[in-house]
Amino acid sequence: MYALVERLYPLCRSITGDGVRATLDIVGEYIPLRTHEVPTGTQVLDWTVPQEWNIRDAYVADAQGNRVVDFAASSLHVLGYSVPVSATMPLDELRAHLHTLPDHPQWVPYRTSYYKPEWGFCLAQETLDALPDGDYEVCVDSTLEDGHLTYAEHVIPGQVSDEVIVSCHVCHPSLANDNLAGIAVATYLARALAEEQPYYTYRFIYAPGTIGAITWLARNAERIDQVKHGLVLACAGDRGQLTYKQSRRGDAEIDRVMRHVLSSSKRPHSVREFTPYGYDERQYCSPGFDLGVGSLSRTPYAGYPEYHTSADNPGFVSPEAMADTLAVCREAFSVLDRNRRYVNLSPYGEPQLGRRGLYDALGGRSDTKEAQMAMLWVLSLSDGEHALLDVAERSGLPFDTVAAAAAALHGAELIKA
Amino acid sequence: MYALVERLYPLCRSITGDGVRATLDIVGEYIPLRTHEVPTGTQVLDWTVPQEWNIRDAYVADAQGNRVVDFAASSLHVLGYSVPVSATMPLDELRAHLHTLPDHPQWVPYRTSYYKPEWGFCLAQETLDALPDGDYEVCVDSTLEDGHLTYAEHVIPGQVSDEVIVSCHVCHPSLANDNLAGIAVATYLARALAEEQPYYTYRFIYAPGTIGAITWLARNAERIDQVKHGLVLACAGDRGQLTYKQSRRGDAEIDRVMRHVLSSSKRPHSVREFTPYGYDERQYCSPGFDLGVGSLSRTPYAGYPEYHTSADNPGFVSPEAMADTLAVCREAFSVLDRNRRYVNLSPYGEPQLGRRGLYDALGGRSDTKEAQMAMLWVLSLSDGEHALLDVAERSGLPFDTVAAAAAALHGAELIKA
Amino acid sequence: MYALVERLYPLCRSITGDGVRATLDIVGEYIPLRTHEVPTGTQVLDWTVPQEWNIRDAYVADAQGNRVVDFAASSLHVLGYSVPVSATMPLDELRAHLHTLPDHPQWVPYRTSYYKPEWGFCLAQETLDALPDGDYEVCVDSTLEDGHLTYAEHVIPGQVSDEVIVSCHVCHPSLANDNLAGIAVATYLARALAEEQPYYTYRFIYAPGTIGAITWLARNAERIDQVKHGLVLACAGDRGQLTYKQSRRGDAEIDRVMRHVLSSSKRPHSVREFTPYGYDERQYCSPGFDLGVGSLSRTPYAGYPEYHTSADNPGFVSPEAMADTLAVCREAFSVLDRNRRYVNLSPYGEPQLGRRGLYDALGGRSDTKEAQMAMLWVLSLSDGEHALLDVAERSGLPFDTVAAAAAALHGAELIKA
Repeated sequence: MYALVERLYPLCRSITGDGVRATLDIVGEYIPLRTHEVPTGTQVLDWTVPQEWNIRDAYVADAQGNRVVDFAASSLHVLGYSVPVSATMPLDELRAHLHTLPDHPQWVPYRTSYYKPEWGFCLAQETLDALPDGDYEVCVDSTLEDGHLTYAEHVIPGQVSDEVIVSCHVCHPSLANDNLAGIAVATYLARALAEEQPYYTYRFIYAPGTIGAITWLARNAERIDQVKHGLVLACAGDRGQLTYKQSRRGDAEIDRVMRHVLSSSKRPHSVREFTPYGYDERQYCSPGFDLGVGSLSRTPYAGYPEYHTSADNPGFVSPEAMADTLAVCREAFSVLDRNRRYVNLSPYGEPQLGRRGLYDALGGRSDTKEAQMAMLWVLSLSDGEHALLDVAERSGLPFDTVAAAAAALHGAELIKA
Repeated sequence: MYALVERLYPLCRSITGDGVRATLDIVGEYIPLRTHEVPTGTQVLDWTVPQEWNIRDAYVADAQGNRVVDFAASSLHVLGYSVPVSATMPLDELRAHLHTLPDHPQWVPYRTSYYKPEWGFCLAQETLDALPDGDYEVCVDSTLEDGHLTYAEHVIPGQVSDEVIVSCHVCHPSLANDNLAGIAVATYLARALAEEQPYYTYRFIYAPGTIGAITWLARNAERIDQVKHGLVLACAGDRGQLTYKQSRRGDAEIDRVMRHVLSSSKRPHSVREFTPYGYDERQYCSPGFDLGVGSLSRTPYAGYPEYHTSADNPGFVSPEAMADTLAVCREAFSVLDRNRRYVNLSPYGEPQLGRRGLYDALGGRSDTKEAQMAMLWVLSLSDGEHALLDVAERSGLPFDTVAAAAAALHGAELIKA
Repeated sequence: MYALVERLYPLCRSITGDGVRATLDIVGEYIPLRTHEVPTGTQVLDWTVPQEWNIRDAYVADAQGNRVVDFAASSLHVLGYSVPVSATMPLDELRAHLHTLPDHPQWVPYRTSYYKPEWGFCLAQETLDALPDGDYEVCVDSTLEDGHLTYAEHVIPGQVSDEVIVSCHVCHPSLANDNLAGIAVATYLARALAEEQPYYTYRFIYAPGTIGAITWLARNAERIDQVKHGLVLACAGDRGQLTYKQSRRGDAEIDRVMRHVLSSSKRPHSVREFTPYGYDERQYCSPGFDLGVGSLSRTPYAGYPEYHTSADNPGFVSPEAMADTLAVCREAFSVLDRNRRYVNLSPYGEPQLGRRGLYDALGGRSDTKEAQMAMLWVLSLSDGEHALLDVAERSGLPFDTVAAAAAALHGAELIKA
């Protein structure tokens, strides 16, 4: 995963354009992707697909022609969606187009202006402070023209058509944690799930933030009812502890599963209430859709000083942290996939487990095994209302033990799904 | 408010009679009142309007003719609703008619006998202890005859006919906190609301305790369904912290508003569960009506030693405390009046706030303003189930910010009430 | 009760057989019992009534003919439901049939093999350790033949046919706390209730564990709807604090009553969630029946080292502990029996209690009596939804005070059941 982050890092992504396409091409080397191109001007929910932005070069050069700010050095240096400009102007006039972080004078901020025509540069405060007065040549060699918005999907068919979506944004330029780590974890998660014949159909969505999720939702309106659960992955690689942000509903199954997995794994973590700000859970959880989609990150959205700056570079993420995020996703989906509701077919009194070979013959001992307790719990709570996760939580038994007990009882035709 | 308390203090109020009329006349100088006179014998719910009681003089005089207990000195000295008496009797015989507070030997208690014909005097234990044996002349120059029960209303018309009632009792004689402070706060609250074109119609009820509220309820049965919220004001002026006693329902909107306002104002305060004892919330919250009526006081009902004694005099209340009670009422009604439920008209994905001028154009920064967060929260929760107070509580944003965001979204036709 | 425990202690009970009959004969000297005999092979729910087991003698004798393990000394020495055996074998071969408690070398364990044909002996580890190698004669003089399963009932008719069941198991051999204390408490509870003309019909069930309860449930299917509440009694006599295990529903009325009684009595106690393991609440609370049946014990099921060993002898239980268990049962059933829901017949405003002689005539005092407060609370909450226990818990008043207030109001025709 770390290698994938490093490969994707230099590309200049935005909400449209060739940077997104190049990113999806690389991801496509790991898992098959179906790419969608949606034309500029397409109405998507309350929004319109904007013009496509592409950029070849951008710089600020001093009187000697030295590039003091250079897009070639970092894609962060240009304001996202900058309109083309080619001009010479004194520093004082230029200042209105320069963005810095006075509190972190060595870091370059990440700024965009998607929907208001603007041009600008982002640079370190130190760089700005060192610029002498005088005229500067500014150049943004970009195009903003009718084109397409690009997003991609990868689908792992399940035993049922009910879907779990995993969504990550692909619109941030050289930001490692806020974007690339999520892409990498999603990609390896897809590879792992593909080997497992999952119960649910898993759909991975790689789309630009906000407008991409809105475009996907607009184009999949007829399929939304199939989306039962989902997870937005972002900030998936920093060294902080895991954070799960619950869906708007707060009691969606994915919320309960993530809380259970994080809690029973003893990992340090935090669980947060939904807020209508952050990543694309904003769109999936908008009140008209209100999907059971949560968001998993390590240090959450905007919760670290390096957020949306040049300091969110590959050194800010770690292979171990991404592996840990991936492991939690796999555990959670493993629980989600088995979290059936069963109905006890012999609900009047306990069925005689002994004659079915499911119960210790020798009575009187107090050390009844966990597996037998799990069977009794599954029988007790299999009333069509409780799922196996309820059984695990109420009994305090591990989910795996409960699921194994359910499988044994199902095999003995004592419960049905 | 304090001046009003001082003016009303000397009057001898009871559940009927000229003391109530004189009190309402004075209040009528501050706000227009509509006075109701209900004849003795009128059936009101399970009760009957009693005879009207008026008193001109009452005293106990010693053998030398010195008035050792004198109604002229304090209206508390006579047992409320004393029947007329004119007699001479030895102290030992008189004692059965004398009420004192042995634990507070300098204070005169407040006692009544509305529904059992009795006569009696209230006096300080010290006074009683100093009386020599011997004969005493006792005189209660009162009348108990068919007449009327008097109460008054003041109505501030709102944009809707749904009503908020504010109720205070007017039946206690010279007791400053338990009665007069509530009258004063209610009166100034009415004056303040009159200048504000409120959403709800506000009805102020000045009535004797228990029988007055019961009379009002009996005569307004057809209008009860319009009463959506209410507040009983009593003990509104002592120096203790504010106490809100919840309605019987406990989750009425007024309960939630008062809890929110008291909690977010950082005032020291306490919130109490409903009990079927106290002031006229007993009647408004009786199970047949079960209105959303709470009670606001400072130190609550019967919660201070001065309660129902001569020590509850104007010195026991403070102008600052009454001003604070008034301020909380105004804040609460300001929230209540704006606490609408909205429906998001663009609930699928977020609406594009930027093109409506409601959102910062420059993206990427983490310091999104509170006003924008409030708009996202209102949009997220405007599903017809959540009111703005829910939005404020769930978001942690000030109610005013949330209400302003709702107004902006309403102006942009993104939500409707 | 202690004498009854001592009398029952030597008998060799099992899930069938003459030991159960002898036990019920003795209990029948205290309260009239109706005994049921259910033939071997009868299908009961998912189970079949097993063959009847009776035993006359059993021992292990050494080469000199000395009985080193002897059923005559304790009924625990033989594995419950041992098939007949008469053989001589070396110690090493015998070991597979010997059960000990290495951690408690002086105690004899209790073991059974009801549904797998086996024979065996239970003995102290110390006894086993002292046995020299060599041949031993083993004899189990038992019969396992078609016969009957025996259980008994005692019914105290109530004012209504709705039933409360009290169930205890009668299948354990010489174990004092785990079995006999529960039988003794149940028996004295029945005697006490018989003198009280209870509201509910109380049905006492003395049946072997698991198969007995299942048999009772199978044979009373048509009456199950009448069973509104129930209590399983077991481990009722040790010196530990009381433990109430809630029904599967957790909010059944018996759960609320037991929590209230234990909590308001200030006894040290614990309340546990339902688990599908333990005594016959397992059967009564199986999801098809899901009865409101909890379980009262002192130290709970399998919660003490003496559990299912020879150390659970009469010395392990105390008369005081059994008396305390009995007292709590009586208090709980006293509350349960009076826990009616009433409807206030005068719900609009407070009814005038004074003219009905239910209220102090002299007003103004703050020391309103508990009885009057209880009447106001009953009136306030008598809306058909709240029962008297709700009133007691919400008001903080003793249940007896609340019930007395309800009786007074009922007498005054202010409420109806």
